[in-house]
Amino acid sequence: RVATVENGGLFIYTNKYSGRPERFTFTSEPTIEDIRRMQAEFTDERDWNQFHQPRNLLLAMVGEVGEVAELFQWRGEVAEGLPDWTESEREHLAHELSDVMIYLVELAEKCRVDLPQAVLRKMALNRQKYPASKVQGSAKKYTEYKD
Amino acid sequence: RVATVENGGLFIYTNKYSGRPERFTFTSEPTIEDIRRMQAEFTDERDWNQFHQPRNLLLAMVGEVGEVAELFQWRGEVAEGLPDWTESEREHLAHELSDVMIYLVELAEKCRVDLPQAVLRKMALNRQKYPASKVQGSAKKYTEYKD
Amino acid sequence: RVATVENGGLFIYTNKYSGRPERFTFTSEPTIEDIRRMQAEFTDERDWNQFHQPRNLLLAMVGEVGEVAELFQWRGEVAEGLPDWTESEREHLAHELSDVMIYLVELAEKCRVDLPQAVLRKMALNRQKYPASKVQGSAKKYTEYKD
Amino acid sequence: RVATVENGGLFIYTNKYSGRPERFTFTSEPTIEDIRRMQAEFTDERDWNQFHQPRNLLLAMVGEVGEVAELFQWRGEVAEGLPDWTESEREHLAHELSDVMIYLVELAEKCRVDLPQAVLRKMALNRQKYPASKVQGSAKKYTEYKD
Repeated sequence: RVATVENGGLFIYTNKYSGRPERFTFTSEPTIEDIRRMQAEFTDERDWNQFHQPRNLLLAMVGEVGEVAELFQWRGEVAEGLPDWTESEREHLAHELSDVMIYLVELAEKCRVDLPQAVLRKMALNRQKYPASKVQGSAKKYTEYKD
Repeated sequence: RVATVENGGLFIYTNKYSGRPERFTFTSEPTIEDIRRMQAEFTDERDWNQFHQPRNLLLAMVGEVGEVAELFQWRGEVAEGLPDWTESEREHLAHELSDVMIYLVELAEKCRVDLPQAVLRKMALNRQKYPASKVQGSAKKYTEYKD
Repeated sequence: RVATVENGGLFIYTNKYSGRPERFTFTSEPTIEDIRRMQAEFTDERDWNQFHQPRNLLLAMVGEVGEVAELFQWRGEVAEGLPDWTESEREHLAHELSDVMIYLVELAEKCRVDLPQAVLRKMALNRQKYPASKVQGSAKKYTEYKD
Repeated sequence: RVATVENGGLFIYTNKYSGRPERFTFTSEPTIEDIRRMQAEFTDERDWNQFHQPRNLLLAMVGEVGEVAELFQWRGEVAEGLPDWTESEREHLAHELSDVMIYLVELAEKCRVDLPQAVLRKMALNRQKYPASKVQGSAKKYTEYKD
């Protein structure tokens, strides 16, 4: 995969054989369960489960979301691909998004919510609530589409 | 896997062959990349990418974190496994945690952050910052462990 | 005071005698202490102090901040004065900002923080950290201005 | 007013003449309008209005709420009056609550919401939604009290 900067800064990934634009994708691993297991080991090794009660983890997640917000707060609108961000700012963002993910996964674990399956169920609900044929190009809330 | 409620409500998962306690685990799928792809298809089908700029997605994630907070706000301390929650409250929580996950994944995509890999890097940093031998049973911030 | 809509929707307040533009101002009452007292009476009358412990109030505030975020999430950049918002959307926003204020005030009370005085101290610190002569027109963090 | 620490750490304020317990109160100034005016001067002097658009201020407020959350995240339940907190932790909390207040006030100003009046209207609504006679000692949501 070859990343080139085009269109006023947007990263376009081009397939190196076909030369056609390719959508940005994630690496397939670690899975959400891998993250859960690694974080559980991390917590166990430090004897930190005593601190990792649900509301503590929720507040920790709120704290990390706040750190993501701080990275975006004085920038005005930010375009897809973050064209004006430095490499160091991107890495900082990657760290803060990761912290949100880690606490979200551990919060789900401590609440006995099977997060990957829960996401599938929620996505199915979203598809029902916002039928593609009805909401094309509109961001109105789903309630406004009800008959 | 057999789930039984013991210890004042905590779910204990017992291996159905060995009968020994088993840690709660997530299903291995969907992966984070699966979620990214499904949400990208959902957004494409509705022509909603015009609304899904980074700061919009960040605010949407803040909104969903707020909805998780509302589920925990008047309960006082909540024990691991949510022993006093009804099935309907658990499902509501599963929905809201899923919404946080979905927006987190899409925010990372639109920022060109490979979230699964970023989490691995951040976890490696956390292991360096909080060496198990030094922080055993203490939640002090890592800066307080520096020499 | 006469409010007229000019400049692409921005509200300009004009002094009705001089006709000169006037900055938007708040009503002088209720004070923060008035809000504290009214909310304390509201809570007392309902016997709700048992629920209004600091972390509960903090999570309630997070929930209300999430509701403010939801009002801004799909709009892209929003100009000062909210020129494109309907009267009903403005009233909804006024309600949600008020909820944040009410929980912030009660959280401070339950933490024994004299919020009005604390704000004065923090503003004095901010003036020291960001000297007007040094930071003119720049949003860099104060640490970057240190000698 | 004389503050003494009693009841396992809770601050009890005693009227110095009557010796009877007194509720913790805030200083009557600055008012919310005073804070608005001081922050407007601070922003004007630094030529920072260009950065203080509504969504920027909202994200800044989210960041500050995150910093409040970090102060509470690993503590488990925290009692009224913060009996176990050091003076330095209290001062840190006072700073972060103040930052939330400052951005909340400026966000309301830039949205042309007269925050003190909006709070009065919202409190009147809350009294209607949760009649004291019906909700005594219960934290159920108001919808559950509807006839």
